[in-house]
Amino acid sequence: MRVVSFRQNGKTDWGIVSEDRIRVAGDGYPATVLQLLEQDAPMDILSRLQADPDATSVPLNEAELLAPIPRPRKNVICLGLNYAEHARESLQTKGLAVEMPEHPVVFTKSTTTITGPYADIPLRSQVTRELDWEAELAVVIGRGGRDIPEAEALQHVFGYMVLNDLTARDLQRRHKQFFLGKSLDDSCPMGPWIVTADEVPDPQNLNVRCWVNGVLKQDGHTSQQIFPVARTIALLSQIMTLEPGDIISTGTPEGVGFARQPPEFLSAGDVVECEISGIGLISNSIVAV
Amino acid sequence: MRVVSFRQNGKTDWGIVSEDRIRVAGDGYPATVLQLLEQDAPMDILSRLQADPDATSVPLNEAELLAPIPRPRKNVICLGLNYAEHARESLQTKGLAVEMPEHPVVFTKSTTTITGPYADIPLRSQVTRELDWEAELAVVIGRGGRDIPEAEALQHVFGYMVLNDLTARDLQRRHKQFFLGKSLDDSCPMGPWIVTADEVPDPQNLNVRCWVNGVLKQDGHTSQQIFPVARTIALLSQIMTLEPGDIISTGTPEGVGFARQPPEFLSAGDVVECEISGIGLISNSIVAV
Repeated sequence: MRVVSFRQNGKTDWGIVSEDRIRVAGDGYPATVLQLLEQDAPMDILSRLQADPDATSVPLNEAELLAPIPRPRKNVICLGLNYAEHARESLQTKGLAVEMPEHPVVFTKSTTTITGPYADIPLRSQVTRELDWEAELAVVIGRGGRDIPEAEALQHVFGYMVLNDLTARDLQRRHKQFFLGKSLDDSCPMGPWIVTADEVPDPQNLNVRCWVNGVLKQDGHTSQQIFPVARTIALLSQIMTLEPGDIISTGTPEGVGFARQPPEFLSAGDVVECEISGIGLISNSIVAV
Repeated sequence: MRVVSFRQNGKTDWGIVSEDRIRVAGDGYPATVLQLLEQDAPMDILSRLQADPDATSVPLNEAELLAPIPRPRKNVICLGLNYAEHARESLQTKGLAVEMPEHPVVFTKSTTTITGPYADIPLRSQVTRELDWEAELAVVIGRGGRDIPEAEALQHVFGYMVLNDLTARDLQRRHKQFFLGKSLDDSCPMGPWIVTADEVPDPQNLNVRCWVNGVLKQDGHTSQQIFPVARTIALLSQIMTLEPGDIISTGTPEGVGFARQPPEFLSAGDVVECEISGIGLISNSIVAV
């Protein structure tokens, strides 16, 4: 199933996509997707909604899709350098020794970065001159936990989304730790929906692509991840308790702007599209503010 | 005023400390400190509570104090290397060139790290062998904003707390970015209360001290901060919108464990106390789990 949050006539709701309509979770359902995930059996609730004869529906193309979880309970957890060829291009461009990470490199994006799958991305040229793209597979945790065994880790995944980890390279460099360069307002579009895990038999068998103004820039495959989804969940949960609704973005493949010759960055008017096979496509315009 | 969150008889409440009692914010008041801060005039609400003849009170020593904001809306925002002597000891110990940061080094601690001012700190020896202390002044944002001028920045501060940015040095090193080493569950005790900004005339004139088992380990002063509070707020808000209830921890002075000769780390049974003059003291026991 495809779970969406959306706004229509000034009101925010959630629902599931059924053909070209959204079946709306109204009275009797959890109020938000986050609250849905905090229930014992969210998939049962989705099944009930899908079969609910009283559920109203709205045309998909008349609703403004939001990030499926517009405001999670903690920052977005992100992996860096999780594809070998991207690790190579990044380290080489920075003049560092090319060594594959033996342990995941993990940073966060503020909750204030989260924005919708088709939202405009504000570009403030006084803040950054080097806005870059990073198409990524994002994992939404369903059941939380600690010390989750790798063999059981995918059972803790509620579903998957497309995510663009937009990054201000100048800020990322200047502030040493990645957080600020990764935390511009509205620099984390995601969605367009959460595809529930039952429809993604193997998260390591997905194409991850990014286009800028229709030109293919990234064309990776999740089989190239150094730390696959299950291993990542297991490793993170050894250190910190994972909770329902946590968003883990699993890193980007090669082809980002700053590692190109010459480097390329996003400008006002550019359109960035990120697509993951079997999940969907998000498309965002860069707008000067 | 001193604003506390506390638990008594299984119920979580908030209030203000008045002598040896807590005046409880009951019906007619915002339900949580975070909701208080999201009101237009939180100080007026506190004044009303202080004068409220119908307010009940409980003895301070019978309540279990929690972190004043037990669950903020984003990760704790933390500065690294913000005291010159600590920058020196850290960089030297890591074998790096000793250069003072020209821009703040900023990372986050997960919301799941937050714990009470007197809470036990779990130490899982299979996860870290190098748990270290970092006494810090934490700022609680009242009025949010973007592009906050440095000259007006302190007007956006609701108050101040003591915070111990407990750190797993082995994880911090291993995972390159600081986030995981900083995000062990319950590794961010804070409080014991928020002292409202009107009672802290100059946040750059405060002693910051840390004791382990009664032995003084850190003895710094906020005048030594490379990026003072007002400058930090101004710089952060150029990049990301600050929101009511955001917690910004302003870095630790010299004297942390890993930079000592020989290095010192926390063990089960140790008691760590952090104190800031005019704010208060937090005290946490390290407990093997």
